[in-house]
Amino acid sequence: MAKITKQSENFSKWYTDVILEADLADYGPVKGTMVIKPYGYSLWQNVKNTLNNMIEESGHENAYFPLFIPKSFLEKEAKHVEGFAKECAVVTHSKLVSEDGVLTVDPSSKLEEEIIVRPTSETIIWHMFKKWVTSYRDLPIKINQWANVVRWEMRTRLFLRTSEFLWQEGHTAHASKEEAIKETLMIVEMYKSLFEEHLAIPTMIGRKSNMERFAGADETYSIETMMKDKKALQAGTSHYLGTNFGTAFDVKFQSKENKEQPVFATSWGVSTRMIGALIMVHGDDKGLKIPPRIAPHQVVIIPINPKNEDKEKFDNFVDTAHNMLKESSIRCSIDDSNNSPGFKFNNWELKGAPLRIDIGLKEFQSGSVTVCRRDTGEKEEMSIKALNTLTSTLEDIQKGMYDSANSFLEENTFELNDYNKFKKQLSNENCFIKAYWDGSDASELKIKEQTKATIRCILKDVNDPNLKCIFSGEPAKHLVVFAKAY
Amino acid sequence: MAKITKQSENFSKWYTDVILEADLADYGPVKGTMVIKPYGYSLWQNVKNTLNNMIEESGHENAYFPLFIPKSFLEKEAKHVEGFAKECAVVTHSKLVSEDGVLTVDPSSKLEEEIIVRPTSETIIWHMFKKWVTSYRDLPIKINQWANVVRWEMRTRLFLRTSEFLWQEGHTAHASKEEAIKETLMIVEMYKSLFEEHLAIPTMIGRKSNMERFAGADETYSIETMMKDKKALQAGTSHYLGTNFGTAFDVKFQSKENKEQPVFATSWGVSTRMIGALIMVHGDDKGLKIPPRIAPHQVVIIPINPKNEDKEKFDNFVDTAHNMLKESSIRCSIDDSNNSPGFKFNNWELKGAPLRIDIGLKEFQSGSVTVCRRDTGEKEEMSIKALNTLTSTLEDIQKGMYDSANSFLEENTFELNDYNKFKKQLSNENCFIKAYWDGSDASELKIKEQTKATIRCILKDVNDPNLKCIFSGEPAKHLVVFAKAY
Repeated sequence: MAKITKQSENFSKWYTDVILEADLADYGPVKGTMVIKPYGYSLWQNVKNTLNNMIEESGHENAYFPLFIPKSFLEKEAKHVEGFAKECAVVTHSKLVSEDGVLTVDPSSKLEEEIIVRPTSETIIWHMFKKWVTSYRDLPIKINQWANVVRWEMRTRLFLRTSEFLWQEGHTAHASKEEAIKETLMIVEMYKSLFEEHLAIPTMIGRKSNMERFAGADETYSIETMMKDKKALQAGTSHYLGTNFGTAFDVKFQSKENKEQPVFATSWGVSTRMIGALIMVHGDDKGLKIPPRIAPHQVVIIPINPKNEDKEKFDNFVDTAHNMLKESSIRCSIDDSNNSPGFKFNNWELKGAPLRIDIGLKEFQSGSVTVCRRDTGEKEEMSIKALNTLTSTLEDIQKGMYDSANSFLEENTFELNDYNKFKKQLSNENCFIKAYWDGSDASELKIKEQTKATIRCILKDVNDPNLKCIFSGEPAKHLVVFAKAY
Repeated sequence: MAKITKQSENFSKWYTDVILEADLADYGPVKGTMVIKPYGYSLWQNVKNTLNNMIEESGHENAYFPLFIPKSFLEKEAKHVEGFAKECAVVTHSKLVSEDGVLTVDPSSKLEEEIIVRPTSETIIWHMFKKWVTSYRDLPIKINQWANVVRWEMRTRLFLRTSEFLWQEGHTAHASKEEAIKETLMIVEMYKSLFEEHLAIPTMIGRKSNMERFAGADETYSIETMMKDKKALQAGTSHYLGTNFGTAFDVKFQSKENKEQPVFATSWGVSTRMIGALIMVHGDDKGLKIPPRIAPHQVVIIPINPKNEDKEKFDNFVDTAHNMLKESSIRCSIDDSNNSPGFKFNNWELKGAPLRIDIGLKEFQSGSVTVCRRDTGEKEEMSIKALNTLTSTLEDIQKGMYDSANSFLEENTFELNDYNKFKKQLSNENCFIKAYWDGSDASELKIKEQTKATIRCILKDVNDPNLKCIFSGEPAKHLVVFAKAY
């Protein structure tokens, strides 16, 4: 039986235990890499398909750009260089030589220019846009890519921070600043509905501070979420890139008025990190809890008939239940493995299936089934004829999971205007703190040094002389959310 | 207007022209890399989704394994080393240093062990199987991965041979040789139905000779297809790997009888190369011809109303046609761009949409539309009420495209038993030649040297003293297909 550390004992260990025991993922052989196992990948596929529909329906087209980026491309945008140079996989050679079965790098295959494995694709995409954009007729370009990217992180954690991860990266090019900003904000709202309606995760949205902004962006908007250890996880970002990449890659266009104009850009992405958020927002000491809308199995049927009594009729009864659920478009499977019922109960709790249906001889004889909810633990016996009502039970679970996560977020978010209380609160336990800030890097840095909390996002700008920065006492420029973060 | 070289003039140039002009793909900045543009990616997505359904329905699960493979893994299987060492992207460093905006590789970030960007994933997957497989209860494992892989080819061509390509790679582990071989063959049949039923491409299937076999396989089965220049394209492979990788990675299992047994393996894949096959099997001097089942747009409507007469009613009429097609589950779009009708006609011919519907004022006034077939060029005026019959027209086009490609394959496949005729035939023009072969590397090599034709696959084994090798005159072991190949 799977052994999982309790959340209260060691949250971080609980997290890893759940991932490994529920068969979501495993460690790859190269440090910091991750193998996504079928159960984890199926979850990712459901999230991916949901988001991909949203992306396509909002007028974006999928495409694919190369993994390999010439080193010189990274140099072209000053902030982008600084942001990514320190954590790159660098390809320097193109051949190995095998001698007596031992492989060494062939020195003669050294590349003229080193190649970077993409940490993100702005540079290569803007190199292509230079070829594709000449006139206002070519704009907007609204492209999305599902891809793997590599950032050579020192400290990695499954799903949250791995040296290779899977993501979606949107890249758009526009004729005007207004249009590009509108796109940036539209995407944040799209992510918000993905998180809230499908992952059942409440979000806070806002702009990033200078220090937390994406390398090369004029503005970065982020989706901030609260984990069960009350730390923040940045779960998605949408960047307004201004003309930074357009200028760096010399992409201009001829306007309707026949004037040469700069091209405005956005980029945005969410990654396999979302799965990390999902685990840490909903999971408990029994394991995962997966919201019905994205669950690989919404319902798992456990047939219990150890002595194979009335085998054929019993199996038919189980199949009938299964078919009724499939007819209601419920993703449903039968666990007819050789494991014991007890093992199966625990296993599907661990794997977070929203509903379990137990069918034993007693149920079979009375034409009923026992339905167990993963979220509340409630059990209910119901007639097999009533199985179509489970569609609304699943909706109820989906809503309940969101409400519960939202209450948790609200209960652990405080508005403070006294820096001593701020420090005390954060030394007691993690939380989100809404507070006023003077907008200076200095204040932000000091707060981080003293409390480990960073500005997660800027909720709104303020212009009222009575509002003071919680740290400096200087006039406040913004209302922000502070928290310790992943 | 797009300019495309004629097939008869220069087939290779025709191929590239079509890809670039129809907006399927473009060249990436690193030599040999490819950008798949939205239209090409949409085509790929349709093929991918079709195949993914087949893979999942046949009991395989999707997963994801890391891009990065330790160099030492490649060393473990002798033939695999030889097969891939010469064309690898080697990551040697993990950091760049930026000085005055110039990036250089940080020598201190040199990796202890070099990392290879996966050319295929057998080694990393069998490393993981070692962790996952202990008992017969863990078998079979039937996994598929959609991924990018890198093979550093010197001579590249869009879709056919690019240093990075997208593919699906299946990897399975079995308790018995019989089961693994059954899997290998089942996959070949699955690929055959993908090609024949969806891509409308007839196939020849057979085993590869020693010389053409996959590095590390005991047997390789391939899907061979004939392009319009009568050269062969190997469009998919399925490998029986025996215990080669199981042994190399020390994966054994406890059998039901409590005995330690070796694990048997298969792997199989098809790639973005399929798009190359599609172009070269169906395309003509006007451009692409895409089979309806995988066409991004099965029907494109061209509204022609230059003076905007009766604008509102006319647009409603066009929308009605569009909606009727959508209700028949036809993938359909309206080209309402500002381009001229003539440009649109040529453009959708170039892009290979199976059906075009022209709606001008004449049609609007008589409640009809003009339907143009890409395959035959036929035009037909029909009542808007009859639009639902286009479902069967699309099926007819699908079938017609297959039949036409199949006739072409048959007309250009010869059975010969005289080596002089063989040489003469191949010096006159490309073709497939069925002939008997003695099974020796020597004969195969000599034939290749003298005619550039290789053994595409072994169609069947023979054991009849009257049958002689076409080259050596020695007793024949196999009936094979020879052809010049991509």
